[in-house]
Amino acid sequence: MTMFMAFKSLELEVIGLTTIFGNGSTELVTRNALHLCEVAGLLDMPVAEGFSEPLKGGLPRVADFVHGSDGLGNTFPPDPKIKTVSKCAAEFLVDKIKEFPHEVTILALGPLTNIAGAIQKDPSFAKNVKKIFVLGGSFFASGNVNPAAEANIYGDPDAADIVFTSGADIVVIGINLTTQLKLTESDLLEIRDSKGAFGKYIYNMCVFYRNWHIESDGLNGIFLHDPGCLAALLDPSLFTYRKGALRVETQGICTGHTLLDLGLKKWNGVNPWSDQPLVSVGWTVNAQGVVNLVKDRLMRP
Amino acid sequence: MTMFMAFKSLELEVIGLTTIFGNGSTELVTRNALHLCEVAGLLDMPVAEGFSEPLKGGLPRVADFVHGSDGLGNTFPPDPKIKTVSKCAAEFLVDKIKEFPHEVTILALGPLTNIAGAIQKDPSFAKNVKKIFVLGGSFFASGNVNPAAEANIYGDPDAADIVFTSGADIVVIGINLTTQLKLTESDLLEIRDSKGAFGKYIYNMCVFYRNWHIESDGLNGIFLHDPGCLAALLDPSLFTYRKGALRVETQGICTGHTLLDLGLKKWNGVNPWSDQPLVSVGWTVNAQGVVNLVKDRLMRP
Repeated sequence: MTMFMAFKSLELEVIGLTTIFGNGSTELVTRNALHLCEVAGLLDMPVAEGFSEPLKGGLPRVADFVHGSDGLGNTFPPDPKIKTVSKCAAEFLVDKIKEFPHEVTILALGPLTNIAGAIQKDPSFAKNVKKIFVLGGSFFASGNVNPAAEANIYGDPDAADIVFTSGADIVVIGINLTTQLKLTESDLLEIRDSKGAFGKYIYNMCVFYRNWHIESDGLNGIFLHDPGCLAALLDPSLFTYRKGALRVETQGICTGHTLLDLGLKKWNGVNPWSDQPLVSVGWTVNAQGVVNLVKDRLMRP
Repeated sequence: MTMFMAFKSLELEVIGLTTIFGNGSTELVTRNALHLCEVAGLLDMPVAEGFSEPLKGGLPRVADFVHGSDGLGNTFPPDPKIKTVSKCAAEFLVDKIKEFPHEVTILALGPLTNIAGAIQKDPSFAKNVKKIFVLGGSFFASGNVNPAAEANIYGDPDAADIVFTSGADIVVIGINLTTQLKLTESDLLEIRDSKGAFGKYIYNMCVFYRNWHIESDGLNGIFLHDPGCLAALLDPSLFTYRKGALRVETQGICTGHTLLDLGLKKWNGVNPWSDQPLVSVGWTVNAQGVVNLVKDRLMRP
C-alpha cells in the first residue's frame, strides 16, 4: 500500500527499494517488492535485497500471521520476471548516499538491519543521508509484539540502537501514533471502487490484514502503520514532534523497547542516554489528515 | 514526613517499621527511623533493620544527594537511644503477617528487598498480607534515576519483579503521579508555622530536599513521593487505577524499568507478562486532594 502511495506521489522520486525480513523472510519480501514493481509497471526500479538475518545473527522473527504466508494477504501472485540489482541493500544504500549526498531520504518500514549495515560500512553515511523516516517503536505506550516492543524494532534491536545513535537526521513514527490511524472497511471499499490504479489490488491484499485486526485489536479495518510514516515524509504538518535521545534495549524481557529521554530532567551522573544525538519522535498526529492523504494517493488513477 | 503523617493518622495503627537502603545505607536509615520514633515519642515502636544490599548482592545504590549525607537534610540529629528489634526486617514481616493474616497492610517506600525476602522465606506471605502499597516505578513516563528507571525499583529490580509477580494484592504508585504532587515553599512555611507537632522539624529537614528540587527539576518546593503513596492508602478516592501484569527489567540499559501490560491487545504467543497476576497501578491523581491531606496531617498538633 505504501509503495503504491509513493509511486503516486509526484513530489517524490523513488530511486530504489531495499528489502528486509519482517512480515516475511527477506527472500519472500524481495520477491514481493519485485512483484509490486511489476504491478506498478516500474520494470526498471532498482530493488536491492537486504540482510536475511538480524545483525547479531540467528533466525529473523517473521510475523507471517499479519499479512499471510505470502506476505501479500494470501493472494498468491505469480513469480516476478524482473530481478534485483546485484548489490545488497546496504551497499546500494551506501552508494546512493555517496552519489547524492544530502539529497536522499530513506523511508524505513522494517527492521533497521540494512541501514545499520550501511552505517557500519561507511562512516560518512549518517551525515550524508538527508533524512531517515523510521516506522518503529512505541513511545510511552505498549508495543505490538509484546507489551515492551514494537515489531520493527524487535526484529533487530541492535540495528535500531545503532541507527538511532548514529547522528543522522532521524524522524521516528511509533505505533502509539499509527494505531490512531484507522482505515475502516468502508474506506477500503471506497478505494476498491474508486478510479485508483491499484484500488482492487489493494483491497484484495488487505482482506487478510483486516481479518487479523478484527482478531487482534477488535478493529473492522486496518491500522495505517507504514502509510502513516510515508504521510509524515510527504506532509510534515500532519504530525508534531519532540526531540530526545533514543536508545533501544537489547537484553532481557524488554528487548526491543524504545526509550526516549525528553531532556526534562537534569540527571545525576552519566547514563546510556547522555550525550547521544537527538532524534525527532512523532508526538501527535492529525489522524483524519493522514487518512485523507492516504485515500487521495490510493485513489489516483 | 510520611512517618509523621502516619503517626498522626488515627485511622491507622502503625505496628512496626522496617528499614532499607535508598537515600542512605540501611544502617543510616535504621538510625534515622529510630531517631524519628524518638522525636514522635514512640519509644516502643518496633523497628526492624532490613537487608544491607540488593537480593543479587553488591553495593546498594545510595542517592545521598537527595536528602543529604545524613538522610535527614543534613540536620545531623543526635544518635538515638532506642534500639531495633532483634529480628531482621524480612523475619519481622513474615511474623507479623502470620500473626495477623489478612489484616496487615505494608506501605513500601523504598527498594523491595525486604518484602521479596519475606516472600522467599514464607510461601503463604503473598496471600496472607492484606495489601501492599508500593511507591515505585514510572508508567509510560520517564524515570528519575535515568530515563528508564525510578529510584526505588532501580535499587533492587530483582526484588521488585518478585514482589509484582507474587500474587499479593498490590497497589503501585509511580513517579508519573507523584511528580504531579507538589508541596511549594509556601506550603512548607505554612506547615512550619502551624500548630503541627513536627512542623518546624519537617521544615528544617526539607530545606536540603527543596534545594535539590530547584537544581534537579526547577521546582521551588518538593515532590510528595512517599506522602503521596500514604495518601493512596488513607484515601482510595484520591486516585484512579488500572490493572495489569507488571514486570521489571533486570538487565541492560533499561534495568529497573517497570513495564505494565494493560491487556488491551491479544498477544500472538506467550511473553513474560502472560498469565502473571494483575496489580493495580495508579493512573490519575487528585493532586490538590493529596496536598490537602498531607497538610492536614502534618498540621495536626
